[in-house]
Amino acid sequence: MPEFFADNVPETIPYKGPTSKDPFSFRHYNPDESILGKPMKEWLRFSVCFWHTLVGGGGQDPFGAKTLRRPWEDGIDDALELAKRSIDVAFEIFTILGVEYYTFHDFDVAPEMATLKESQKALEDVGDYLLKKQNESGVRLLWATQNLFAHPRYMHGALTNPDVHVFCYAAAQIQNIMDLNAKLGGANHVFWGGREGYQTLLNTDVKQECDHAAAMFRMAIDYKARKNYTAQFLLEPKPREPTKHQYDYDAQTTMAFLHEYGLQDQFLLNIEPNHTTLAGHAPEHDVVVASAYNMLGSIDSNTGDTLVGWDTDQFPMNLQDTTAIMSVVLKQGGFQKGGLNFDCKVRRESVDPEDIILGHVAAMDCYALGLRKAAAMQQAGELDSMLQARYASWQTGSLGRKISNGQATLEECAEYAKEKGEPVLQSGKQEMFEMVRNRYLYPGN
Amino acid sequence: MPEFFADNVPETIPYKGPTSKDPFSFRHYNPDESILGKPMKEWLRFSVCFWHTLVGGGGQDPFGAKTLRRPWEDGIDDALELAKRSIDVAFEIFTILGVEYYTFHDFDVAPEMATLKESQKALEDVGDYLLKKQNESGVRLLWATQNLFAHPRYMHGALTNPDVHVFCYAAAQIQNIMDLNAKLGGANHVFWGGREGYQTLLNTDVKQECDHAAAMFRMAIDYKARKNYTAQFLLEPKPREPTKHQYDYDAQTTMAFLHEYGLQDQFLLNIEPNHTTLAGHAPEHDVVVASAYNMLGSIDSNTGDTLVGWDTDQFPMNLQDTTAIMSVVLKQGGFQKGGLNFDCKVRRESVDPEDIILGHVAAMDCYALGLRKAAAMQQAGELDSMLQARYASWQTGSLGRKISNGQATLEECAEYAKEKGEPVLQSGKQEMFEMVRNRYLYPGN
Amino acid sequence: MPEFFADNVPETIPYKGPTSKDPFSFRHYNPDESILGKPMKEWLRFSVCFWHTLVGGGGQDPFGAKTLRRPWEDGIDDALELAKRSIDVAFEIFTILGVEYYTFHDFDVAPEMATLKESQKALEDVGDYLLKKQNESGVRLLWATQNLFAHPRYMHGALTNPDVHVFCYAAAQIQNIMDLNAKLGGANHVFWGGREGYQTLLNTDVKQECDHAAAMFRMAIDYKARKNYTAQFLLEPKPREPTKHQYDYDAQTTMAFLHEYGLQDQFLLNIEPNHTTLAGHAPEHDVVVASAYNMLGSIDSNTGDTLVGWDTDQFPMNLQDTTAIMSVVLKQGGFQKGGLNFDCKVRRESVDPEDIILGHVAAMDCYALGLRKAAAMQQAGELDSMLQARYASWQTGSLGRKISNGQATLEECAEYAKEKGEPVLQSGKQEMFEMVRNRYLYPGN
Amino acid sequence: MPEFFADNVPETIPYKGPTSKDPFSFRHYNPDESILGKPMKEWLRFSVCFWHTLVGGGGQDPFGAKTLRRPWEDGIDDALELAKRSIDVAFEIFTILGVEYYTFHDFDVAPEMATLKESQKALEDVGDYLLKKQNESGVRLLWATQNLFAHPRYMHGALTNPDVHVFCYAAAQIQNIMDLNAKLGGANHVFWGGREGYQTLLNTDVKQECDHAAAMFRMAIDYKARKNYTAQFLLEPKPREPTKHQYDYDAQTTMAFLHEYGLQDQFLLNIEPNHTTLAGHAPEHDVVVASAYNMLGSIDSNTGDTLVGWDTDQFPMNLQDTTAIMSVVLKQGGFQKGGLNFDCKVRRESVDPEDIILGHVAAMDCYALGLRKAAAMQQAGELDSMLQARYASWQTGSLGRKISNGQATLEECAEYAKEKGEPVLQSGKQEMFEMVRNRYLYPGN
Repeated sequence: MPEFFADNVPETIPYKGPTSKDPFSFRHYNPDESILGKPMKEWLRFSVCFWHTLVGGGGQDPFGAKTLRRPWEDGIDDALELAKRSIDVAFEIFTILGVEYYTFHDFDVAPEMATLKESQKALEDVGDYLLKKQNESGVRLLWATQNLFAHPRYMHGALTNPDVHVFCYAAAQIQNIMDLNAKLGGANHVFWGGREGYQTLLNTDVKQECDHAAAMFRMAIDYKARKNYTAQFLLEPKPREPTKHQYDYDAQTTMAFLHEYGLQDQFLLNIEPNHTTLAGHAPEHDVVVASAYNMLGSIDSNTGDTLVGWDTDQFPMNLQDTTAIMSVVLKQGGFQKGGLNFDCKVRRESVDPEDIILGHVAAMDCYALGLRKAAAMQQAGELDSMLQARYASWQTGSLGRKISNGQATLEECAEYAKEKGEPVLQSGKQEMFEMVRNRYLYPGN
Repeated sequence: MPEFFADNVPETIPYKGPTSKDPFSFRHYNPDESILGKPMKEWLRFSVCFWHTLVGGGGQDPFGAKTLRRPWEDGIDDALELAKRSIDVAFEIFTILGVEYYTFHDFDVAPEMATLKESQKALEDVGDYLLKKQNESGVRLLWATQNLFAHPRYMHGALTNPDVHVFCYAAAQIQNIMDLNAKLGGANHVFWGGREGYQTLLNTDVKQECDHAAAMFRMAIDYKARKNYTAQFLLEPKPREPTKHQYDYDAQTTMAFLHEYGLQDQFLLNIEPNHTTLAGHAPEHDVVVASAYNMLGSIDSNTGDTLVGWDTDQFPMNLQDTTAIMSVVLKQGGFQKGGLNFDCKVRRESVDPEDIILGHVAAMDCYALGLRKAAAMQQAGELDSMLQARYASWQTGSLGRKISNGQATLEECAEYAKEKGEPVLQSGKQEMFEMVRNRYLYPGN
Repeated sequence: MPEFFADNVPETIPYKGPTSKDPFSFRHYNPDESILGKPMKEWLRFSVCFWHTLVGGGGQDPFGAKTLRRPWEDGIDDALELAKRSIDVAFEIFTILGVEYYTFHDFDVAPEMATLKESQKALEDVGDYLLKKQNESGVRLLWATQNLFAHPRYMHGALTNPDVHVFCYAAAQIQNIMDLNAKLGGANHVFWGGREGYQTLLNTDVKQECDHAAAMFRMAIDYKARKNYTAQFLLEPKPREPTKHQYDYDAQTTMAFLHEYGLQDQFLLNIEPNHTTLAGHAPEHDVVVASAYNMLGSIDSNTGDTLVGWDTDQFPMNLQDTTAIMSVVLKQGGFQKGGLNFDCKVRRESVDPEDIILGHVAAMDCYALGLRKAAAMQQAGELDSMLQARYASWQTGSLGRKISNGQATLEECAEYAKEKGEPVLQSGKQEMFEMVRNRYLYPGN
Repeated sequence: MPEFFADNVPETIPYKGPTSKDPFSFRHYNPDESILGKPMKEWLRFSVCFWHTLVGGGGQDPFGAKTLRRPWEDGIDDALELAKRSIDVAFEIFTILGVEYYTFHDFDVAPEMATLKESQKALEDVGDYLLKKQNESGVRLLWATQNLFAHPRYMHGALTNPDVHVFCYAAAQIQNIMDLNAKLGGANHVFWGGREGYQTLLNTDVKQECDHAAAMFRMAIDYKARKNYTAQFLLEPKPREPTKHQYDYDAQTTMAFLHEYGLQDQFLLNIEPNHTTLAGHAPEHDVVVASAYNMLGSIDSNTGDTLVGWDTDQFPMNLQDTTAIMSVVLKQGGFQKGGLNFDCKVRRESVDPEDIILGHVAAMDCYALGLRKAAAMQQAGELDSMLQARYASWQTGSLGRKISNGQATLEECAEYAKEKGEPVLQSGKQEMFEMVRNRYLYPGN
């Protein structure tokens, strides 16, 4: 029986198959079942983040107070004790859900104290506790990150703050979390530029701010090299919110930044589809683009509502989206060091502690079913064949390959067109592609 | 064998069940199968519109020319002959798809001639031909409408045009289509205000324009009464495109207009979810709201892309949306005179004539499966029970009923609150609602 | 010298004319200067709201903590004392700015206590204090309102809450604020449905919720009548945020609601252009539409950023917008009981107390200049003449008037069109309208 | 007197100063007046594009037919004659407006014929005619480009078409326009990927398509080098429309593409603010970012409506935007080879030929006034000083410079923060920045 959740929540959510009506069971996620030669859990590498699950404002929003009051916080006054209690609850959640990875921001797990030194001390204490919990539970750290957006000092950004003093404060946090991450064996280190951007261009020197961010990244790369740390650095794009414009707008904007500063070999991307839609793209777009250029490091599973203009960080419940995303993951042979991280928040109206469990169970199931569908599509090969047929002309004649290899000239191509005359229109077959996809998504009546 | 489509297209699309891989078969739509006591075809009342299917620009878009060239148009020069040929093709499509209803704009079916009189004559000729085709095929007219947006004369609107001359031109078209609709036994008459709105408020007198629109509606109501016509008038909201702002922005804006001019008893609404999302609402929102106030007359099934800012008029392929919409239709006991009309266009890149058939088959299947899911949900009653439980307090005590009946006072309510003290927070259970819904949408692995 | 602001802030902001470089002076707002026969201050009826100015989260946002720490709050522990201190500061701000009106939510001015009864007591105490301050300063109450969105109990709405107990709690707050408003001589009473809407249609009974809201309004109307209260009721539309969809989406949706429940004669609208753009309309659209149907009661001046998807509640700084809005106010002969209320917030990065003053000064100037421009345009009559010329045909011939008067028939109009033939296209002259407007907006080099 | 425009249009629009009420005069644009040491016309380098001005659909939109009928096209049947007539009209427009540059797509100026060879011949003929007109008028070519989006063959893109045959067709057009551009002395060559993107990811191989685009660019670079052509290559970003997603989404996405394929030194960007807002950024954002990284080549002045979801290509009439853009141009010392190109369309309702002139006059004035304001701001230095003050800490101490120079370590920065303790919050002063800007934008009453 769980310690912090009600009796109806089991110690571990069992797989009961698709006909199960038990809300505390998986209908699709069967961790050890083999899909295309690998256990489901290895394809999915599910992780849960402290942030929205246990911290993240407690349901507070711009128009209302905290709604989510957690019984396990009652009666604990000491900040460090409370942190440890939260860790206990978190590891209970990880165990209930059967996820093998977790993630956190520094001040999700440890209290921020009055001085940097005290905060560092608290973080180290908590680090020891986390290590103990990791060893007991077998749950591993997917990534750690530093919160450089919540404290007032970061109101103008951290790496891009006009004040060098604040920049240095951020450096201290980064160093601390790099050290802790190494101690805990974290696979990745995420940088999310929550306020690295602007509210108005009137008071902002965009170039200088980006130069400073690059300088910080170079120092972090240098520190990592000197310490022989191995965590993969990840950048997480988000177009706006809280600021009007964030420099890491989307996958390709972030890739532009990396190239402009020669940092492209030191980072991969952590993509969150909710941020992708906020940037105006299809949910899977940034995952597709990042993967195409070998830049897909990890995924934050959170989904949003394309009809509201902010990040809702909802649990992913849409099979079409999860299938599209898992298709990309399958095609690139799975994640390497990354995973599928849940940094989703229960709605502020979902005040029952069990709602945390229910949201994760339904969302993990939705991704697990997405994996099953993606695998079925890939195995059937129908959509892939249709896709390849569209590009066949680049393979069949000699000119296509010559162009691809950079050996053709403009004149040669022009000559070919003049000889061949008007091309025949070929249907894009979008309706047919959608029909075939729907056969896999919705196989029964 | 069809006359106008290739050999691979059957004379009528058969139902082959969910395991069928034949793209020219229904996997979910089985017209005579009974669902909750009524044949599927009666719940769905599928209809196909001439506009996007056979007219509608031929794939033209703001940056490109017509792409959709139809072999059946070859070699016919006479406009009236071409119109009849299109009608032949249309009825072949209706028959292939097995839909029992169709819809059109005046100049979808007849050519617009140099003068009103000639156009009226052409429309009458075509009307006779349509009647003959109706009788032969058994396909009935769901609604007719007048095209008051394509011709340059309507560039500033029709009913709201600053020029009374143009307004009168529109009146003539409305009268003609009312007469034709009566002759053909059309069940409804749709008004879509494609340019009834503004490009800039600077040159627009909003109030005067709306007054004029109301005047036209009153004349049409009067004419209908004098002629004993019975078609139900429907208004179709759309927020913008082609103009910056259209007066029939969405369901409730249109309802406001009707009330402001005392027209609320003479009209129902024709809702298109693609217009609904363009207005910033969830796809099913306007259907829900219109039904709640007994204003839902008919539905245009077209869907859009919430991440682009214009009407894409795509075939509905998303089961979550079709299920949500069919749930409302089920709850209100089905359509009365309305139906589910497809005024969808194949993508301009879908240049094969068979793409028209494929798009409709996949979309009809998606709505048919939506009906099945909605029926299953309703029968199981799980979601309904969860919903009713949320509002139980309005039934259980006496105060809720008293308030609902308008018999309570502010003081009485205030007193109740003072006695009872702080209410207990009750979870909205959104994640649970989504989990349960997904059980029905995605029942298997 | 002000008590709570630094020495550089004068006791009252003087008018120094357009060449002034003193940030603590008005360049355009000269309260007693006559514009079209009325003092500027009477056209503008500026008001400042407690909410964003002194309460409203203190710069908190979904990703960050409070940044705005106010020295005047230091050292006061007692909630009621703190409330009174805030009132002192507020009245100092009103005096510095020279505004003659103010507005508040119940729990802006008084602390919310553990029970309704205690809260009521605190509100009454504070009410006495406010009355004293009003009398001392001559500043009057434009409107009062009740905060029915911030407390967790209102997470599912207040008037539309599924729990009758919460509904009654709201009733108590409404009654209290009606009583207080009467005592303070408030001109209007605003209802903003901050959470009257839904997060998901899955768990929502839209019709029942709206029925309950209407029931509450009827009780409030009845109470007002019994008490002989005279404050004008105002509804304030907002499309979304905090919820996914709010029932008072925009001006016309709100008007539809009023008509559906027969409440249209009891309410006017309080329009906020930031809410208008969030609903997808031009900033002045709802002001125009509300005024056209005699429903414009008051305006909240807050502006937003159309490129972000949430309410930024910025100070209005765009002359084109303020001119458009003041043109409507001029045309309807000014406000009756309403005014131009500032419920704007300084950016969370604007941490200096003086930023509150600077924001208001610049925004008041922007509205004052908008009034000057609107008056100049109206006096010159150029744009009005151009507008009337567009609609001339409705006046010149007899048919236009006949149609407007409801005396024409469809046949008569059709006949007219047949006789007259094809209408001549008339340019909408948008570029010319914009050119002429810019002449007034930007008169010099 | 102009040949093609009515008598009220003068041969050349004169500068009459800000008090002029003559719509056919400039109030702000005084070409030879010196601003910060350079004539206005050199700062602005105004250009007019054939596309929207004389071609571009004639007012056609997705819901309506061509509205703009031009008398000068009457009675000419031969395509080549008609092309030359359009050129005559265009050069008359250039002369009336007094612009020194123009731009075109291949099939704006020459008719597209049945075969590539015939089209090439027509283009050459027209090229001779253009050269003659250039010499006669002194108007020079700012850039030429190829239309790779309007013809049905390009429905799936040109450089990214799945069919190598279509790709080669595009190569032929590019070669032809490169040759013509060299002959005419064009300063730049623009590539706009109007359909280089996707409608659905289902049928698209993003990576392969981008590889092909890069291959084409390499061939064009190679051809340019072999021919010793000197026109600067420009890429023009646009996020979507006509396709759902275009690969050149915005400035930074395009910069990412260039870096990924090592093309960054061969291209600059042609930025259109209307495309920038469509991508979700402030109008001046892409201009700011491109300039920051020395990638700003030229600007298309077209503006849009942030509240509709498509490209409206309106004439820029908003002083705040034009001032923001001219501030960037001033800061980078002016354009090099690029200019301010008007590819704006009159509204489809603006059917008078004179509306073309009026739109340009008002828009040129709006940019000219923007230049005046930007220069005044720069000269006063107030905003620049406020900006520099925000970043002062990076200059004053030694650490800031050390970090900027890449000589600091993470530990060093962390140590600094630990010593210094908590940073003091510094106001971002957004309201003050806006107040000061407004002083320059709106100097009078």
